[in-house]
Amino acid sequence: MNTTSSATARVFSSDNVAGTSPEIIEAMARAASGPALPYGADDSTAAVRRRLSDLFEREVDVLLVSTGSAANALSLAALTPPWGSVLCHRDSHINNDECGAPEFYTAGAKLVPLGGDDAKIDPRELRAAVRHKAGDVHSVEPSVVGVTQATETGAVYSLDELGTLGGITEEAGLRLHMDGARFAGAVASLGRTPAELTWRAGVDLLSFGATKNGTMTADAIVVFDRSLTPELSFRAKRAGQLAAKMRFQAAQLDAYLTDDLWLRNASHANAMAARLQEGLKAIPEVGLLGATDVNILFCRLPQQVTEGLLADGYAFYHDRWEPGVVRFVTSFATTPEDVDDLLRAVVRHAARPTVSV
Amino acid sequence: MNTTSSATARVFSSDNVAGTSPEIIEAMARAASGPALPYGADDSTAAVRRRLSDLFEREVDVLLVSTGSAANALSLAALTPPWGSVLCHRDSHINNDECGAPEFYTAGAKLVPLGGDDAKIDPRELRAAVRHKAGDVHSVEPSVVGVTQATETGAVYSLDELGTLGGITEEAGLRLHMDGARFAGAVASLGRTPAELTWRAGVDLLSFGATKNGTMTADAIVVFDRSLTPELSFRAKRAGQLAAKMRFQAAQLDAYLTDDLWLRNASHANAMAARLQEGLKAIPEVGLLGATDVNILFCRLPQQVTEGLLADGYAFYHDRWEPGVVRFVTSFATTPEDVDDLLRAVVRHAARPTVSV
Amino acid sequence: MNTTSSATARVFSSDNVAGTSPEIIEAMARAASGPALPYGADDSTAAVRRRLSDLFEREVDVLLVSTGSAANALSLAALTPPWGSVLCHRDSHINNDECGAPEFYTAGAKLVPLGGDDAKIDPRELRAAVRHKAGDVHSVEPSVVGVTQATETGAVYSLDELGTLGGITEEAGLRLHMDGARFAGAVASLGRTPAELTWRAGVDLLSFGATKNGTMTADAIVVFDRSLTPELSFRAKRAGQLAAKMRFQAAQLDAYLTDDLWLRNASHANAMAARLQEGLKAIPEVGLLGATDVNILFCRLPQQVTEGLLADGYAFYHDRWEPGVVRFVTSFATTPEDVDDLLRAVVRHAARPTVSV
Amino acid sequence: MNTTSSATARVFSSDNVAGTSPEIIEAMARAASGPALPYGADDSTAAVRRRLSDLFEREVDVLLVSTGSAANALSLAALTPPWGSVLCHRDSHINNDECGAPEFYTAGAKLVPLGGDDAKIDPRELRAAVRHKAGDVHSVEPSVVGVTQATETGAVYSLDELGTLGGITEEAGLRLHMDGARFAGAVASLGRTPAELTWRAGVDLLSFGATKNGTMTADAIVVFDRSLTPELSFRAKRAGQLAAKMRFQAAQLDAYLTDDLWLRNASHANAMAARLQEGLKAIPEVGLLGATDVNILFCRLPQQVTEGLLADGYAFYHDRWEPGVVRFVTSFATTPEDVDDLLRAVVRHAARPTVSV
Repeated sequence: MNTTSSATARVFSSDNVAGTSPEIIEAMARAASGPALPYGADDSTAAVRRRLSDLFEREVDVLLVSTGSAANALSLAALTPPWGSVLCHRDSHINNDECGAPEFYTAGAKLVPLGGDDAKIDPRELRAAVRHKAGDVHSVEPSVVGVTQATETGAVYSLDELGTLGGITEEAGLRLHMDGARFAGAVASLGRTPAELTWRAGVDLLSFGATKNGTMTADAIVVFDRSLTPELSFRAKRAGQLAAKMRFQAAQLDAYLTDDLWLRNASHANAMAARLQEGLKAIPEVGLLGATDVNILFCRLPQQVTEGLLADGYAFYHDRWEPGVVRFVTSFATTPEDVDDLLRAVVRHAARPTVSV
Repeated sequence: MNTTSSATARVFSSDNVAGTSPEIIEAMARAASGPALPYGADDSTAAVRRRLSDLFEREVDVLLVSTGSAANALSLAALTPPWGSVLCHRDSHINNDECGAPEFYTAGAKLVPLGGDDAKIDPRELRAAVRHKAGDVHSVEPSVVGVTQATETGAVYSLDELGTLGGITEEAGLRLHMDGARFAGAVASLGRTPAELTWRAGVDLLSFGATKNGTMTADAIVVFDRSLTPELSFRAKRAGQLAAKMRFQAAQLDAYLTDDLWLRNASHANAMAARLQEGLKAIPEVGLLGATDVNILFCRLPQQVTEGLLADGYAFYHDRWEPGVVRFVTSFATTPEDVDDLLRAVVRHAARPTVSV
Repeated sequence: MNTTSSATARVFSSDNVAGTSPEIIEAMARAASGPALPYGADDSTAAVRRRLSDLFEREVDVLLVSTGSAANALSLAALTPPWGSVLCHRDSHINNDECGAPEFYTAGAKLVPLGGDDAKIDPRELRAAVRHKAGDVHSVEPSVVGVTQATETGAVYSLDELGTLGGITEEAGLRLHMDGARFAGAVASLGRTPAELTWRAGVDLLSFGATKNGTMTADAIVVFDRSLTPELSFRAKRAGQLAAKMRFQAAQLDAYLTDDLWLRNASHANAMAARLQEGLKAIPEVGLLGATDVNILFCRLPQQVTEGLLADGYAFYHDRWEPGVVRFVTSFATTPEDVDDLLRAVVRHAARPTVSV
Repeated sequence: MNTTSSATARVFSSDNVAGTSPEIIEAMARAASGPALPYGADDSTAAVRRRLSDLFEREVDVLLVSTGSAANALSLAALTPPWGSVLCHRDSHINNDECGAPEFYTAGAKLVPLGGDDAKIDPRELRAAVRHKAGDVHSVEPSVVGVTQATETGAVYSLDELGTLGGITEEAGLRLHMDGARFAGAVASLGRTPAELTWRAGVDLLSFGATKNGTMTADAIVVFDRSLTPELSFRAKRAGQLAAKMRFQAAQLDAYLTDDLWLRNASHANAMAARLQEGLKAIPEVGLLGATDVNILFCRLPQQVTEGLLADGYAFYHDRWEPGVVRFVTSFATTPEDVDDLLRAVVRHAARPTVSV
């Protein structure tokens, strides 16, 4: 991928292709010199814990990790025994995109895929699954429910929807994990507090994603059930996820949590996706698909439009889910001009006469 | 830990308390903006691979990871089946200081501890161990030899010593892993090429440590036996060690490998330890212990000296191995003044009359 | 469960409630005295290997294990890396009824459930699954196909059907495992040779079930790809599946393979299910469901019949799959009189006037 | 191994080469016909639980497994987290002879080898080990102490010795597992009750060995801490250790526990070793080694004696521990004549003039 400015503007493949926020690189520079205690005993790591406790309106513990997959897999390992099952949406990242990281970290627990629109778990399916062969030694034991907020298709669970899933989970005595790779986007979209969207809804552990929204190599596990912290600490070390110079992961998150950078970045990314959605709505050849609550937009494009955009140098996923379906992802770094350019390109390619063969 | 200049100067507890080299933070800043392909498909990651291929005088593959423990555990997992054993020194980091990361990543292989001076494996013990119950299903199968270069006590294997261990390993049909958390220090100390010290001596995989020598959160696995690369790639992803924004780990290593920064940093750290050693040698109350080939120095101090240094605000490990034994570690950030100040403090405390009780 | 003769005759819940064939208990008695080399180095174990090599018309290796779950899980562990996936039917035993034994033994591989009638894998689904994200480090790697012959619902794959699945598997470079918990029943039903139904169709490893068909505590893995034998041997020991007094597992299988006892037992069990099917066909209130190629029969019974049978002391599974659906399983120990008594009872209860409430 | 009577009499290699007690094969024959509920829900399994509760003078739970390795590995898995360590003697079976079964079942816990005479853990070493880096995330966490009663060299822990180890274990908050592969021999030797030797000394789980002492393929886990039973049940199923026709494992143990067969068998085996010891004591060329509290005897034999015995067809381990050292193991099936014949052979070979070369 070139980094010429035009190419830059044309990357809608994922939010992980963006760089980092200036505030974060500045924080890294400030953290660069002088000694600091290793392995999370430094001042920055303590500051991150305080900031997250403030943000979530209660005392929380925090583990800083290098990837979202590590956050998810570590969390799940603390919530299910090896003979347990993780009930999750069939399109979830933990089920599809982590090469079995949850199975590895849990020592072989089973992910049980459930259905539901917009990659949100259907409560009826969950209700059946939490009881399925519970207590039967011939079967894996339903142990933890994994929700993704926002989902892989760009939708968010409303507070009501979350409450329903949390209620089913709690009533059945299971644990609740939230993959918040795009948690900031969900908060920005819903206008509810982080507390409402997590522990008040029954979430035990949250993968607090930051990398897709402006940090470089830092994600976090936010621990609401603090009795899990010792186990998580051993597991993190054992997984090679306890960084010696933790200050450099902490500095990223500290800046990310300062002056609402996390929320500003996510709001911006959401707004860019909304702007794109508005523009596409007006183009008759384009069919919008599903909810676009955060920074991910799915639509159906005529083949000539897809080909035209690719020829222009646009980067995005297409024909991966089904033929004709395209995904655009915006980020904190996307500009209104980037979106408007893309929209103009879609209009231009849609207007081309189709060449019949 | 405060970061006032005096405190800074008085930290000899480990090389992981130092920050990062200016060149590296500058590289991070350069990498901060614009898009880049994720998961190691970016230009910086490619550049690191080229630089390491040049450095090691052959085509190598490279995996960038976030910690040395991850580098070690991933490497070992690719070199032993779950029913295999890893023959290593009883004082090695993999055996003592990674909370069972190798056991986790290998799915339960066994670390077999061997003896030897200066934390170097005794070839006679290795010779017995590589044959021990080989092919016997009742026993774990000797599978991989793990050497640490430089060792946990600051010694280095000479090229001859390495050749001996490599020969025993190869003859028995085992694989060879090198934990190079302080590999740069060993190269600086021995004056031999990286190639001579690794694949030419039979090393299959090297944990190429960088964090202790100037980077922030980046270490690497250097793959000499490139048939292992696909397996390592799956394992890394599954372990949560495949960073989305890999460019930020690559940028660190790219800078680290530019203009011999890695070697200059290590040479400096070694020189600081040598300066300290020279100084201590002249103090009759101090007993030097073992080899100080790199940036780690063990010595025996009178109790009043240890207590005096602690009272001055010096940080270092003491009384951990045995009563009276102290470890000092220097780093790329240690200055000659820091060392000289420490030496003067030792002299001062040694000269104090002992108060009899 | 009482063992009065009437109760005995009324157990159709599973073939694992039957005892053992007289020939097998006699063989155990003969094996009881005198010394024998442990861990499978005894003469009986060698004899079993010869018998199975004869039966399968090629040299095979054999591992004797104590359960079918162990046979399946060990086999799968030898055929997939931890980051691999096992493509199997969603109703298969390995997916549903082994409490995650495959995930445990494989160190966390993923079972990918596929659909298809009669619990047989639909070749179209398999064709898509073998390519799904192959070579993509973000996803588990398709590694082994697991077929069950006969299936959990009592159907068998024809030679053609098996050939199709084997072809897809081979073409995609995957391995093929057969769960033969009721393999004898399948052979008896199809009238094809064991060789045709296994390695000639591409099967690498077969779980050769015996317990459900007349032995006590002995199943076997038949190894067609003998390069897997060393790995399997280490894995079996490590799993606690290498019996010291292996002769007692071997004696069971030796007798089971003598004078076609295995085939006679299975043919008898199949015939009893066929007799039951014939009889039920003539009862208008009963709806037969799916194929009954071996000793398992599914049907739909009126509630009053189910209740009446239970009141008579009949044991069988009902209302487990869906309301009104009943499963009857016959065994080598089922007699024609047992079947006829059951049929008469069904007729009697079907004829009772329904009490309206 | 031939089974001619003379060969029979000459096997002193292990107690696992013996067959089974007549009472046990008779019990198997009685269990052979009629239906029984599977997976341990049968009457015989319930009877075994009652018998063991009586024997141990308290309510216990019981899991029947197919090998001693499975009993040990399952037990340890329930007593340590994956990041824990198992403190055991360096010569213990779990450390040396199970191909890493404990590491497999525990998902990678670490066995920490301790020293001590007669393969008994030295309390001083244990005292240091239980505190070693406890609570330090960089190290595996001391979690369970594993004792073997009787030990691999044929010694037994006295009640006092056991109490000391149990006290250290309890005080440090660790769990206690006993590998009782030869537990019957220890009870016979010590003349203390099973209760005194286990839960009254702090044992949480006991691997109650039976195979080496007269059963065929049945060992058991006796669960004193019954809160562990659900976890053990899931683990056992998942390990392929939940036999469908459990009655056949239960029948063996039921007979084994009837009329003190277990104790009579063990007393006999012990007596045969004592007879051998007495006889050898009188032969000046033989040097007895270590304690012979149960049915295992170590001694030093002149080479010509070893060679002579082998030429006579005697089977036993020699030169495995160190040159000249021989191990003889007796069993319930060894006769006084077998022992006397062996003694006469030793005398005869010892008397032969040594041929000088």
